[in-house]
Amino acid sequence: MTESGPLAGVTVLDLTRVLAGPYCTMVLQDLGARVIKVERPGTGDDARHIGPFITGTATGTTAGTAPEARESAYFLSLNRGKQSIALDLKDPADREIFDHLLGAADVLVENYRPGTMEKLGYGWDAIRQKHPRLIYAAVSGFGHTGPYAPRPAYDMVVQGMGGIMSLTGTPGGPPTRVGSSIGDITAGLFTAIGVNAALYERRQTGLGRKIDVAMLDSQVAILENAIARYQATGEVPGPLGARHPSITPFEAFSTRDGYVVIAAGNDELFAKLCDTLDRPDLKHDPDFTSNDGRTQNHERLKRELEGALAAATTHEWLGRMGAAEIPCGPINDVAQVMADAQVLARNMVVSVPSANGQKFSIAGNPIKLSGIEDPTTRPPAPALDEHREALVREFAGAPARGAPDNSGSGD
Amino acid sequence: MTESGPLAGVTVLDLTRVLAGPYCTMVLQDLGARVIKVERPGTGDDARHIGPFITGTATGTTAGTAPEARESAYFLSLNRGKQSIALDLKDPADREIFDHLLGAADVLVENYRPGTMEKLGYGWDAIRQKHPRLIYAAVSGFGHTGPYAPRPAYDMVVQGMGGIMSLTGTPGGPPTRVGSSIGDITAGLFTAIGVNAALYERRQTGLGRKIDVAMLDSQVAILENAIARYQATGEVPGPLGARHPSITPFEAFSTRDGYVVIAAGNDELFAKLCDTLDRPDLKHDPDFTSNDGRTQNHERLKRELEGALAAATTHEWLGRMGAAEIPCGPINDVAQVMADAQVLARNMVVSVPSANGQKFSIAGNPIKLSGIEDPTTRPPAPALDEHREALVREFAGAPARGAPDNSGSGD
Repeated sequence: MTESGPLAGVTVLDLTRVLAGPYCTMVLQDLGARVIKVERPGTGDDARHIGPFITGTATGTTAGTAPEARESAYFLSLNRGKQSIALDLKDPADREIFDHLLGAADVLVENYRPGTMEKLGYGWDAIRQKHPRLIYAAVSGFGHTGPYAPRPAYDMVVQGMGGIMSLTGTPGGPPTRVGSSIGDITAGLFTAIGVNAALYERRQTGLGRKIDVAMLDSQVAILENAIARYQATGEVPGPLGARHPSITPFEAFSTRDGYVVIAAGNDELFAKLCDTLDRPDLKHDPDFTSNDGRTQNHERLKRELEGALAAATTHEWLGRMGAAEIPCGPINDVAQVMADAQVLARNMVVSVPSANGQKFSIAGNPIKLSGIEDPTTRPPAPALDEHREALVREFAGAPARGAPDNSGSGD
Repeated sequence: MTESGPLAGVTVLDLTRVLAGPYCTMVLQDLGARVIKVERPGTGDDARHIGPFITGTATGTTAGTAPEARESAYFLSLNRGKQSIALDLKDPADREIFDHLLGAADVLVENYRPGTMEKLGYGWDAIRQKHPRLIYAAVSGFGHTGPYAPRPAYDMVVQGMGGIMSLTGTPGGPPTRVGSSIGDITAGLFTAIGVNAALYERRQTGLGRKIDVAMLDSQVAILENAIARYQATGEVPGPLGARHPSITPFEAFSTRDGYVVIAAGNDELFAKLCDTLDRPDLKHDPDFTSNDGRTQNHERLKRELEGALAAATTHEWLGRMGAAEIPCGPINDVAQVMADAQVLARNMVVSVPSANGQKFSIAGNPIKLSGIEDPTTRPPAPALDEHREALVREFAGAPARGAPDNSGSGD
């Protein structure tokens, strides 16, 4: 048997759309799970209709292209390697197919608004009666409990409500969003953790669990030291540009021709930095001898450091600081990231075929596991309903699966 | 037996420091694992020395406080509920204790620079010979392979190198960091996913794996649609302030007295928004009839929407838009987040005792599991070496543990 990952043999029924849920099931798929995407007939996953779109050429634009000739690059990047079946969960015939899939699945992931699955007759309480082994994971904006539970939410909303926007940006500047949909992505990651933990536990107990992850909760969980700072000092934290709030120097600094990020967070690294910048006096300056002192006097320290850094280019400083083993780096744009030697060596850019046969590059899997292949390509994303016939043949009419992977004592 | 989580019975030996590794083991602890923190004698985890510090009063500052009288709020928030033993891994007597702990552990997590564990004789190849069941998880800046593997890295460095900083901030503005250490935190989350998946697999195979997660890789993995946008259009994505790059309106807008986030990402929600703002004409404007059109004409759309939003306050608009079920929200600061009705209802602010007995609030666990208690309090963080005696008594001299939780067929 070929090892395809620690989740080989796990079947995930994926009712999710757009980002948080599909990101979770993408991670599960990267770990070897089989993911069957159940989509709305006609339109499918909303992400199929979100640009940018791939058309005839790799750099083509979508202007004037008929919708049916285009493929969403966004959808492709999140749904590679998944299977698709379009089911109307209000239609009796489709419900029968869905029931068979439910009987065969190990995990169900959904990101409907709370209550939707109940209205369809597929809420957790109903499902667990018929499928006690099924792990039911729900990702939603606000979670399945609490006063906001019924409200709709998207990434922007939880980035705003969850506090991360209040910490991101320039002091006194306009509201600033984190440049990727961290509200969705972190919720997807926490859900993937919960699914894996529940799979582990089920090997022993034979029973599934409901996992209820809210995007808002996930934002609170990543506020990191901001909560501690607020409580310890009584001051409400604000945005700090490119500076770390309590470790100094830990920031982007200007050089002769651009910027360099320096993270010299302890006294030893700070001393090395001062020597490398030919300012050994700074390490003896009483304002800068401790991290606390450097943080309290960060404005003056920045002026001193940028005065020295103006003498050379970012490239030159990266060489000198790198030789001194001072943690530092450039600010790369996406093109530079995708050409970076380490990113490529780590197989973090992999290729996937688009519907028109072009190769398209997407992010790889950051969970590198010994003994598990880390392929440089991924299978394509499915067309809507592409696997209906095969899935119906495989599952519909077949008896609900027993407990083949459940070797635990609780079953 | 009290259920304390799906990872009840799992023992994690935690050699990590500061953030990425401790965040991972915090998540594992929240899921029921026992976490034994192995710290450097004398100073312990670097985070013990990173402010803000808790002193005699909840809002006290650290000025003039002797180091031994203070407790790092940062350390406390990440290490609640863990046990601590200080071991010098170059000292023969301490190595013997460590060997006994290794024999008893299910998971080892470390975030040293690559090569450090090998120099100590505890690299993966050495460990797997003696402890084939042990899951070995390594979190590092650049990973254990590739040309940058030996380099030191911190959050700021990988935020710069990994592309997220190029997407975050105001167009044309200064470099902007994501306001929490997303480089560390996402690496911690991916590592936690890998550990759980490996635990699941080990139930069947009886064998551990090495998990190698790089902070830089994790940043690439969360670039989301930026990679797709770059390839589909050939344009290098830049920062967009508070706007989503390809969904419109999906942004923070100014009101009479502040800001409101609106995420009306599809045609139906956009129509509702136009009606709620008393600008029904906008939904028929040919520039705005599709998401693509709205994205291409986002500047004019923003002017039109902010013109209407200037008529009322953020609070008033939240009420009106909420009634129309338009996804929207405020931009909350940390104090507002910690007082938010939904955040509190979801138990996302929990309390932990500090060393001086004060109650201190920290973020709760966002992975809500049916049938698993979600306590409103957490046990305290350990003092350095606090559990040495108990751990030595429990483990040293005891034979290496068998395979009590391994009920799989492969063992």
